[in-house]
Amino acid sequence: MGRTVDVTELVLRDGHQSLLATRMALEDMAPICEEIDAAGYWSVECWGGATFDSCIRYLNEDPWERLRTFRRLMPNSRLQMLLRGQNLLGYRHYEDTVVDRFVEKSAENGMDVFRVFDALNDVRNIKRALEAVKRTGKHAQGTVCYTVSPLHSVSDFVDMAQRLVEMGADSICIKDMAALLKPQPAYDIVKGIKERCGAETRVHVHVHSTTGVTLVSLMKAIEAGADVVDTSISSLSLGPGHNPTESLVEMLEGTGFQTSLDKSRLLKIKEHFAQVRPKYSAFESNIVGVETEIFDSQIPGGMISNMESQLKAQDAGDKLKDVYAEVPRVRRDAGYPPLVTPSSQIVGTQAVFNVLMGEYKVMTGEFADLMLGYYGETLGERNPDVIAQAIEHAKKNPITCRPADLLTSEWDELRDRAAALAGFDGTDEDVLTYAMFPQVAPTFLKSRPEGPKNVGTSAGKPASAVPHSKNGVVKEPVQSPVVYDITVGEKTHHVTVTPA
Amino acid sequence: MGRTVDVTELVLRDGHQSLLATRMALEDMAPICEEIDAAGYWSVECWGGATFDSCIRYLNEDPWERLRTFRRLMPNSRLQMLLRGQNLLGYRHYEDTVVDRFVEKSAENGMDVFRVFDALNDVRNIKRALEAVKRTGKHAQGTVCYTVSPLHSVSDFVDMAQRLVEMGADSICIKDMAALLKPQPAYDIVKGIKERCGAETRVHVHVHSTTGVTLVSLMKAIEAGADVVDTSISSLSLGPGHNPTESLVEMLEGTGFQTSLDKSRLLKIKEHFAQVRPKYSAFESNIVGVETEIFDSQIPGGMISNMESQLKAQDAGDKLKDVYAEVPRVRRDAGYPPLVTPSSQIVGTQAVFNVLMGEYKVMTGEFADLMLGYYGETLGERNPDVIAQAIEHAKKNPITCRPADLLTSEWDELRDRAAALAGFDGTDEDVLTYAMFPQVAPTFLKSRPEGPKNVGTSAGKPASAVPHSKNGVVKEPVQSPVVYDITVGEKTHHVTVTPA
Repeated sequence: MGRTVDVTELVLRDGHQSLLATRMALEDMAPICEEIDAAGYWSVECWGGATFDSCIRYLNEDPWERLRTFRRLMPNSRLQMLLRGQNLLGYRHYEDTVVDRFVEKSAENGMDVFRVFDALNDVRNIKRALEAVKRTGKHAQGTVCYTVSPLHSVSDFVDMAQRLVEMGADSICIKDMAALLKPQPAYDIVKGIKERCGAETRVHVHVHSTTGVTLVSLMKAIEAGADVVDTSISSLSLGPGHNPTESLVEMLEGTGFQTSLDKSRLLKIKEHFAQVRPKYSAFESNIVGVETEIFDSQIPGGMISNMESQLKAQDAGDKLKDVYAEVPRVRRDAGYPPLVTPSSQIVGTQAVFNVLMGEYKVMTGEFADLMLGYYGETLGERNPDVIAQAIEHAKKNPITCRPADLLTSEWDELRDRAAALAGFDGTDEDVLTYAMFPQVAPTFLKSRPEGPKNVGTSAGKPASAVPHSKNGVVKEPVQSPVVYDITVGEKTHHVTVTPA
Repeated sequence: MGRTVDVTELVLRDGHQSLLATRMALEDMAPICEEIDAAGYWSVECWGGATFDSCIRYLNEDPWERLRTFRRLMPNSRLQMLLRGQNLLGYRHYEDTVVDRFVEKSAENGMDVFRVFDALNDVRNIKRALEAVKRTGKHAQGTVCYTVSPLHSVSDFVDMAQRLVEMGADSICIKDMAALLKPQPAYDIVKGIKERCGAETRVHVHVHSTTGVTLVSLMKAIEAGADVVDTSISSLSLGPGHNPTESLVEMLEGTGFQTSLDKSRLLKIKEHFAQVRPKYSAFESNIVGVETEIFDSQIPGGMISNMESQLKAQDAGDKLKDVYAEVPRVRRDAGYPPLVTPSSQIVGTQAVFNVLMGEYKVMTGEFADLMLGYYGETLGERNPDVIAQAIEHAKKNPITCRPADLLTSEWDELRDRAAALAGFDGTDEDVLTYAMFPQVAPTFLKSRPEGPKNVGTSAGKPASAVPHSKNGVVKEPVQSPVVYDITVGEKTHHVTVTPA
């Protein structure tokens, strides 16, 4: 018997987020939790920003109640969540005590493993959340977002992992949200982390399957020493989702590696979700095969669909190729941020504006903030000329401190505002729900007594009635609309961009 | 720069055979042939039993004309075909001079690479065809069908490869028709062949993607020294088909291996078939994801759907689990043949009969033939008790010679019979078309002047109007109905089984 590789099951969070627009209701998961609990997973990912958002926006389901239910139904499992560092589950930086409170309450309600990342890979945006997790005694996982740029090298990712370990991370996750992680870099990065940080440093690898190559990357990561890999049960796998759990198990036979998963239980889990999936067919991603073009464009699919929508809204659909060429330039000017929510939208929207109106003639407030350090630091140096233009557009000075250092205590105000809402139940959980999604929470809290709505039962409605991209590219998961302040000359415009 | 791995493109044969029931018309392939020709493939698989059958059965297209068209449109490419050894493209053993004639005519019409296999892995059934190919000066590829059984080991496959090399094969193909080839055996078999037969022995690896693990197997095969791997362009890949060509290319980056494929041409090929595919949606396999259960059952998907149809026809749909358990016993009794056309149907049907009527109480003529050596030799010893029953059922003695040795010259008779058909054009090609599919050819030769019919244009008709399996398992490609003679006591019944 060789080394046992542990597995994190994604179906309850990223699986349906990537394939069914995060629409799956708790009642379609609950019946199979007993099997999941007993199947031998290292952890069960089941909570995160998009699932929380979808619960209150579409499903009239209390996400905290969902978490407590998982805890009750899977008493033997490590429950795992994805946390956006200082952004928690929202789209802005929160003040530190809100971060602390959110982590405490999540742990209290049953969360075991916190996977903490930052869209810019700025470890300062990860630190407070990691420390908060450590204080609860739960598992604090530091995350390195994988990206490809002319600048990023294996050693940069290893450097970041080392900083996270030094911060006290209990494990490191390499997170490849765009399926760009090829086998050789997967091997090199895992090997690099093990060599730099010690063989005892647990390394988890999270990949998507969009490009078709990443099961091979998992194999190579395992050969390099990865301790845990993330997969999703086969009936909710592939396409913009993940590699199938069962294929991972079978792949290892005879290699000297094995999992400790129970194949007969995996079969039951597979069959369960094979039954459930058609209920949500109206929300299916329209990617079913493989997309490898993103290796060359380095533009994740979700970003393409966003930019297309924006161009079409301006009757400029023919400009897409120009925007493709502009994205790398904008990204270079911004210091090569990874392209993941929200940096992908910010860079993509700015590229669209550059093409339509001339380079940086119009600048979104968000892009100015990105240039001025208000989202954090990037690996690359930012273009000083564009920084100067951002100062002028935004009438703000650049910062070099951690963005959250500029925030003042906000808990009491959040509580007061939440308390004023109809349906508020007085708990810190409700305050946090409001804090995360202040535009959605008021409606949710009011309608909460009506109980969960399963949108899967409306699978019969025509697919055109639900938003989905039309051009064979991956759709981003559920997100809040982003409001940009655009200043042209003296005039400021508010532009709302709803991710496709 | 490391070693260059060559690639065979499958989309023109096995790609649409596995995903679109072999229904693609030449006119939907021709416009992209120029790009395929220039993309840098080692070979282009474009002809075989099912495509030939489909041409005359469904498309009113002369398969020889299709071959000549490919030759004209792809002057720089090696055209490749799959040949069922002594069975050629049909379902019975042909006398040697027919084998010779078929190979000559195929070469003359433009074929370059002949991949020759036998369903039982009996090299005597491969020898004549290999020799015929050698005489034409074309590339003679000997094929090892990969299968899994309690008996088969790496060294058995290597032994067979060695025998094929000794017969003069220009290269060896490991053919994994059921997606059972896992990474470690892929590595071990390729390594074993290279060590036993010499590093200069070219090894090709053909896998399907049904189980989701085989791109990893290709990676391991390449690491072990495989020279050529088979893939299909991404827009006609995955599911019961093959791994995507583009993913293979990308996967290798940085590994020390590379292909010489032109990615910009691959993109055009991808886009072409992405446009074509929806025309044939009525013929789509209803497998879209991954099936790993076949690793345990060792029953290929197509076999399951056949057996289900047979059981349902007998109102015994509830007996499927019994049949699953019976298949391995029948296969053991038969000496563990690989399960591929026609052995999969023969074993499966016998298992159904055993469950419905008692073990070997009823025996199909084909199963008796299999037990008595009329299909060739198997790796395992056959059960003497069952051989005795087969003798009794079939009133025939077992043989140990090569089955085709029992045949007498048949060309003149085939020519005479073909000549009697309306529409016969006097060519050897028409004789061979008749020889391969004597039940279908008469209708085809008569209707040939009406020209090709593109069944893709009827994509709008309801899917229920075309046969496809209903239970999420892979459908077998187009095949002739098989007529069984079943003897119960004194009475003989003719039973026609049409593969689902």
